[in-house]
Amino acid sequence: MSGNSIGQRLVLTSFGESHGKTIGAVLDGCPAGLEIDEKEIQKMLDLRRPGQNQISTQRKEKDIVEIISGVFRGHTTGAPITMVIQNSDQKSKDYDALRTKLRPGHSDYPAMIKYNHLNDYRGGGRFSGRLTATHVMGGAIAIKLLRVTLGIKTNSFTSQIGKIKMEEKFNAKMARLIYKNEVRCPDNKTAKLMRAGILDAKKRGDSLGGIIQSVTTHVPVGLGEPIFGSLESDLSKAIFSIPSVKGIEFGSGFMGSELCGSENNDLYVVRRGKIVTETNRSGGILGGISNGMPITMRIAFKPASSIAQKQKTVDIKTKKETILRVRGRHDPCVVPRAPPVVDSLVALTLADHALLSGTIKPVL
Amino acid sequence: MSGNSIGQRLVLTSFGESHGKTIGAVLDGCPAGLEIDEKEIQKMLDLRRPGQNQISTQRKEKDIVEIISGVFRGHTTGAPITMVIQNSDQKSKDYDALRTKLRPGHSDYPAMIKYNHLNDYRGGGRFSGRLTATHVMGGAIAIKLLRVTLGIKTNSFTSQIGKIKMEEKFNAKMARLIYKNEVRCPDNKTAKLMRAGILDAKKRGDSLGGIIQSVTTHVPVGLGEPIFGSLESDLSKAIFSIPSVKGIEFGSGFMGSELCGSENNDLYVVRRGKIVTETNRSGGILGGISNGMPITMRIAFKPASSIAQKQKTVDIKTKKETILRVRGRHDPCVVPRAPPVVDSLVALTLADHALLSGTIKPVL
Amino acid sequence: MSGNSIGQRLVLTSFGESHGKTIGAVLDGCPAGLEIDEKEIQKMLDLRRPGQNQISTQRKEKDIVEIISGVFRGHTTGAPITMVIQNSDQKSKDYDALRTKLRPGHSDYPAMIKYNHLNDYRGGGRFSGRLTATHVMGGAIAIKLLRVTLGIKTNSFTSQIGKIKMEEKFNAKMARLIYKNEVRCPDNKTAKLMRAGILDAKKRGDSLGGIIQSVTTHVPVGLGEPIFGSLESDLSKAIFSIPSVKGIEFGSGFMGSELCGSENNDLYVVRRGKIVTETNRSGGILGGISNGMPITMRIAFKPASSIAQKQKTVDIKTKKETILRVRGRHDPCVVPRAPPVVDSLVALTLADHALLSGTIKPVL
Amino acid sequence: MSGNSIGQRLVLTSFGESHGKTIGAVLDGCPAGLEIDEKEIQKMLDLRRPGQNQISTQRKEKDIVEIISGVFRGHTTGAPITMVIQNSDQKSKDYDALRTKLRPGHSDYPAMIKYNHLNDYRGGGRFSGRLTATHVMGGAIAIKLLRVTLGIKTNSFTSQIGKIKMEEKFNAKMARLIYKNEVRCPDNKTAKLMRAGILDAKKRGDSLGGIIQSVTTHVPVGLGEPIFGSLESDLSKAIFSIPSVKGIEFGSGFMGSELCGSENNDLYVVRRGKIVTETNRSGGILGGISNGMPITMRIAFKPASSIAQKQKTVDIKTKKETILRVRGRHDPCVVPRAPPVVDSLVALTLADHALLSGTIKPVL
Repeated sequence: MSGNSIGQRLVLTSFGESHGKTIGAVLDGCPAGLEIDEKEIQKMLDLRRPGQNQISTQRKEKDIVEIISGVFRGHTTGAPITMVIQNSDQKSKDYDALRTKLRPGHSDYPAMIKYNHLNDYRGGGRFSGRLTATHVMGGAIAIKLLRVTLGIKTNSFTSQIGKIKMEEKFNAKMARLIYKNEVRCPDNKTAKLMRAGILDAKKRGDSLGGIIQSVTTHVPVGLGEPIFGSLESDLSKAIFSIPSVKGIEFGSGFMGSELCGSENNDLYVVRRGKIVTETNRSGGILGGISNGMPITMRIAFKPASSIAQKQKTVDIKTKKETILRVRGRHDPCVVPRAPPVVDSLVALTLADHALLSGTIKPVL
Repeated sequence: MSGNSIGQRLVLTSFGESHGKTIGAVLDGCPAGLEIDEKEIQKMLDLRRPGQNQISTQRKEKDIVEIISGVFRGHTTGAPITMVIQNSDQKSKDYDALRTKLRPGHSDYPAMIKYNHLNDYRGGGRFSGRLTATHVMGGAIAIKLLRVTLGIKTNSFTSQIGKIKMEEKFNAKMARLIYKNEVRCPDNKTAKLMRAGILDAKKRGDSLGGIIQSVTTHVPVGLGEPIFGSLESDLSKAIFSIPSVKGIEFGSGFMGSELCGSENNDLYVVRRGKIVTETNRSGGILGGISNGMPITMRIAFKPASSIAQKQKTVDIKTKKETILRVRGRHDPCVVPRAPPVVDSLVALTLADHALLSGTIKPVL
Repeated sequence: MSGNSIGQRLVLTSFGESHGKTIGAVLDGCPAGLEIDEKEIQKMLDLRRPGQNQISTQRKEKDIVEIISGVFRGHTTGAPITMVIQNSDQKSKDYDALRTKLRPGHSDYPAMIKYNHLNDYRGGGRFSGRLTATHVMGGAIAIKLLRVTLGIKTNSFTSQIGKIKMEEKFNAKMARLIYKNEVRCPDNKTAKLMRAGILDAKKRGDSLGGIIQSVTTHVPVGLGEPIFGSLESDLSKAIFSIPSVKGIEFGSGFMGSELCGSENNDLYVVRRGKIVTETNRSGGILGGISNGMPITMRIAFKPASSIAQKQKTVDIKTKKETILRVRGRHDPCVVPRAPPVVDSLVALTLADHALLSGTIKPVL
Repeated sequence: MSGNSIGQRLVLTSFGESHGKTIGAVLDGCPAGLEIDEKEIQKMLDLRRPGQNQISTQRKEKDIVEIISGVFRGHTTGAPITMVIQNSDQKSKDYDALRTKLRPGHSDYPAMIKYNHLNDYRGGGRFSGRLTATHVMGGAIAIKLLRVTLGIKTNSFTSQIGKIKMEEKFNAKMARLIYKNEVRCPDNKTAKLMRAGILDAKKRGDSLGGIIQSVTTHVPVGLGEPIFGSLESDLSKAIFSIPSVKGIEFGSGFMGSELCGSENNDLYVVRRGKIVTETNRSGGILGGISNGMPITMRIAFKPASSIAQKQKTVDIKTKKETILRVRGRHDPCVVPRAPPVVDSLVALTLADHALLSGTIKPVL
């Protein structure tokens, strides 16, 4: 496959281009018998949708999802579930000037070379962050599947914007605070600083990056396969499909590399009759397999590549250096829109593994 | 597949257990016509082999590779290439005491639950770091394939052990220095400090982690597929198959998240008639596709989980807390043995993408 | 994957149900740069469409195809191509009576058990012959791709209806006669007898089966992979996705089993400087690989399972024997509508192999 | 993958060449906890082994199987099971004369072109019937898995050699007669005629083909997936991996195409409280899904291509017509050695589907 599908037993195929007619997803392998409501999917898409506040792009993408196959009488049937969004509000003209001037940080240059200039370049085409809406379509179903069958809960949130970091440690009670503010940081005080930081960058015609933290609880012991099918392998593969992601770490991650084994090992204890570890520096994964502790990840997003400032670049037609000013309506920071996307990819990956290992059955 | 294979067009299947009869690999999809010499594969396996110096385990694994299919008259034929190593020098008895006491940081607990105690637990069984020898068998061929066809070169090296960091920036000239010392750090002064650090940890019955840096040059523009087939997705999936890896970042990675777009964007310029970027904060990958700049990664290894100190743990049989002292011969730090493994996985991934995109042909 | 996708490098994913909102297909992996016109796909769908004459069902499916992704400025871009047909004219009520009475010859019984009664049963749901329209959507593009790049031509036609057989041997000149009559038999005299046979069965409330012959010319030498990737393996896998197909043979097939080796072997000769075989009992495939001779197949279709006569059956709810009379509008013989479907699946399979072997490039 | 693997959840990878060092197979995805005895696999390999009687080749292949991974304490562990046979008794010199003279009916010509003369041609190399031993290695395990978990039984036998047909209908009681004679026909009288026919062909330096019939009983309702994952699709894909197979039909097959729907439909009845069909013209598969009735197939084998008679052919080096006499020790008829191979491929396919559908669990 050419990169447009992910998963083995639960397969998401994404299609569409930023300024094409339609974007959509086919979710194949979802067990029969799961109750599905378009509104639930819509609700999650709305969390990702731009144009809702000052800190995101002013593009008004309505992103109304329609299920066109695989659901009968409000339940999945075991057949592939296809969901589509009709595109609207694209201003393709904004991109005409860019056809030959390479936008720094974007896929423009490698994509043009790879496809010999045959790719749809409008709005980034197939490489646009807009396509993460197709992850959320499938993800909303995977999240529900995991919740209904195994009680798994995924909470992703903004823990850093630029240099502004949330210092408080995340705990389960903070989950309901994540979507209380525009930056999706459960610590409201930090959230305000982050918001101000983004607006400041926007004013300067600049952009910011940041870090998403993801915590998944109630994961059963035993998801994941040895070697190439490790949970870390499959989670990272999924997460790196999000444009702008440049790093991922599980548990103690890069910081753990500086510790001794005696400091980093999580010791086993028995609590309420259950084997658990005292600490969770492993991020809930040992030998690639879930150990029942929360799966924790930190994900690094680079600052958005589209900035309003003039940048030096090359015109690929003339092969001469030139100056570019990217127009169009862009996010000064994409991080606040990422939590539902991360949740989606985590859920798709875990659901795939739960089906592979027989933990979830093909017919509920 | 159950996690034992990786790749789409160039597929590596790994088999064997730490203390089984044989470990081996089948490499399927390698183009016909590549000259293969067992000695070249052996040479690379020797770089990974333990028991060679004071800083690694004293296990004497001979690791003699034998090619048993797919090579005829010294060349690949297009048929699957099978390579095996006969196991030797395992002391399985060392593991008998461990059968029920869970080793902190290891796969023991999740593996026992996943397989209902049916897995081969000796020496970590299928989850042992020993299995990375099978990555190297396939990787040695992929490295040669990339070199011969595209001139690609991969150099991975130790850039940090515990808290000791190589400060100097890596450049192409340093490549030949990597294997001049036991820790595989091209900066010899830092290497000495690292070596001392490892010996010190060993003396204390403790272990260290560290960071491997990987730089791949001469990559053509256009490798990688959109979305789920991004180079970052497939490289990270491969790299996380190495036991102990807990983090990965490309280019400016986590640090880049703190920069503004105007600081992090790599600007295009023309140098000697070629379009390149002035800086390489993208790590050679934009939109998931190679842009012709070096592919750079940093990979975080946790400290080895096997330490000689007493650790609190649980006996899974009695479900009671207990004390464990892991015996056996273990690496105080696995990082110095990892560079050939990282090189192998990078090469397997890039070769797979080069075949997928038609950059390398199925018959040379 | 759950059976809804086929192909490795050129992947067709089919979605939709007989009486759902939409049926459609995603074709992934089609090379960039192929000129695509919705009308060409429509033309081929029209050849499969029912309701056009007396010998097919009177359902009026308009089957208007719309391309919703993957085509830009009239050409493929390398992105997944999604095509949809909005369903219409379904009379789902016809099926309400059938919900518990098992229709002989249909998937009803095994599907109900497999999906625990959760599947969409209307009109056969996911198992309906209607879904072969999704094969044709992808096939029309594969046919064009093979024609434009390699000059390959596929001609499938009706060679037998019930006991009425076309005796004449097919030759290239007859290709243009196939669609000159309603039964798609290039021998017009036999076609008339076939048509009369079908109308007679229809009058009796009965149905007929038949045989499709398929001849593909201008195939390059070397398509196909050893063992499980043989052309026969992949062609048969594709062809058996057509409901009602119960047999397939290549070249001399079942008759060849009665011959001696000295009679069945095709001898090599040189004709106009080219190595060819004097006869073509191999059907153009040796060792699973194309040998440059026409690929010839015969495909057995059972008589349509829906007949207007009363049939003995079981009510799955009461587990009692009962009598069923299938209502609805059904084809007395599906064979005349099958040639474009067979052509499509042959083309998809050969195009997949041409891409796998590097015979067609990912970017034209 | 390049044709060397089959299956999705239970994956068999075959490796080796006819005259290479070793042939072998990796079976990945077999549930943990299945008791495995090398002797059981050996027993089944012995049924396929040549050199045992007058009607097969006089090559003495010992074919001693060795399990080198995936089995611990006599049981599967969930890790990939690798099995190997060391090759012996090859007379490669016999093939040296053939290097340029194309053997009619063999893969020589397309393989040489496909691999640009880089393939291992000795004894047919990767295309040799010898490789079906790797199917049997995996098949022996799949057969046991199906028997132990679901009670499924597969019986394949010779029903026709050349023009000599077994007229009697197969029934369960005949299963134990299959291996009572050299041709593996459960009707001993016909078997004698078949044996005489083969010896006669051998005397004339000629070869015979034939038909294998396969009957699989105790199949649960619901195996198979819609559309491209139909049981017929996956069984035929597997079966066509056997060299010499040129046709396959399920149930009434080609004969069924001549019947009316009212004659071919299997009517549902209740017998001993179970829903069954009165007849089994569907061959146990409806809509691609098993319906609980025996799965019945007929498989056409062409006469062996290697005959001792002089044949006209072309020398690929000189591109001139010439005369070839194939030397070496060949089977005058391969059909009697095929039943264990067919059983193996049927079992591998059904076990794969049983795992996919959750009918068999990943850990027993």
